[in-house]
Amino acid sequence: MDDDQLKWREIGREAAFKTKIFTVTNRTCVSPQGGNETFTVIETNDWVVVVPELEDGKAFYMVRQWRHGAGEMSLEFPGGVIETGETALDGAERELREETGCVAGKMTKLGVMSPNPAIMANRVHFFLAEDLRVDGDLRPDKDEFITAERVDAGEVTRGAGAPPYIHSLMATALCLYNRLKQRTA
Amino acid sequence: MDDDQLKWREIGREAAFKTKIFTVTNRTCVSPQGGNETFTVIETNDWVVVVPELEDGKAFYMVRQWRHGAGEMSLEFPGGVIETGETALDGAERELREETGCVAGKMTKLGVMSPNPAIMANRVHFFLAEDLRVDGDLRPDKDEFITAERVDAGEVTRGAGAPPYIHSLMATALCLYNRLKQRTA
Repeated sequence: MDDDQLKWREIGREAAFKTKIFTVTNRTCVSPQGGNETFTVIETNDWVVVVPELEDGKAFYMVRQWRHGAGEMSLEFPGGVIETGETALDGAERELREETGCVAGKMTKLGVMSPNPAIMANRVHFFLAEDLRVDGDLRPDKDEFITAERVDAGEVTRGAGAPPYIHSLMATALCLYNRLKQRTA
Repeated sequence: MDDDQLKWREIGREAAFKTKIFTVTNRTCVSPQGGNETFTVIETNDWVVVVPELEDGKAFYMVRQWRHGAGEMSLEFPGGVIETGETALDGAERELREETGCVAGKMTKLGVMSPNPAIMANRVHFFLAEDLRVDGDLRPDKDEFITAERVDAGEVTRGAGAPPYIHSLMATALCLYNRLKQRTA
């Protein structure tokens, strides 16, 4: 079966609900067999996740913070929302600086994925940050309480999938990083 | 700084918008310094993702389908929403059967993560499915048009982060799978 027998075609879209951080839309689509269905999709800016490598990969710089969706602490790579007008690289450099206090001598794109292609329209851009140097204090947003810390790479690998390593996009980034470095996850 | 200086405390929650597949809630929380803020959180059932291993890890069984959020084709591991009353394992076995036509002789839990701990309250449960045998035809939901196919593991690894390997939870699962199998991503 080729892709044309699986593809839907959008014929209408309307906003159903707006928040400060995303808009819920209803999209009406025609199925491969011609029937109409309406699907709920969350629209928001793209996100960025940065893997800050330390000591030639022996460790990472990571961010500890309370996460309101999960309702628990998370230890994760820096990242956040790409602001309107920023490129993905701009956003990666800004989030790295804000959340770890570091600037990178070298930034490498690791890949672009969909955080949830079923219900989210945006993408996540993954970067590797190398040759880090401390540029000053963290600059959290006003409602962010975060700390940055060095974490052994082995600890992150062993810990993924259980608290405090709860963020799935952290493990997505680790997968893309391990591929680039040809490392065992 | 210890976790108590980073933790927020929820003091109120109200539903703001409901769809068939999720509810948007506003949660009012007290910051570590005592100020109140309201955060938007998406509540929905937990999800499951299954890595169906073939040929001792040389290949995977994967699902090709149109994804309405991303608006493009995705080639990904089987998975979906855990139905109310199901355990995570029940959901994993059901999704594997529905989307690939296979049943597994052995199912192993790979980990539990938050798909997006910032704005989503639910969790994703990851499983490895081994000793697969074909049990019959696919059983897609009525609005699903999917095919299942054997894909070389190397192709998945090389392809992650670009179409059709767009699903971030597919790469999260691959990270946890590679860890268990001590493989290079």
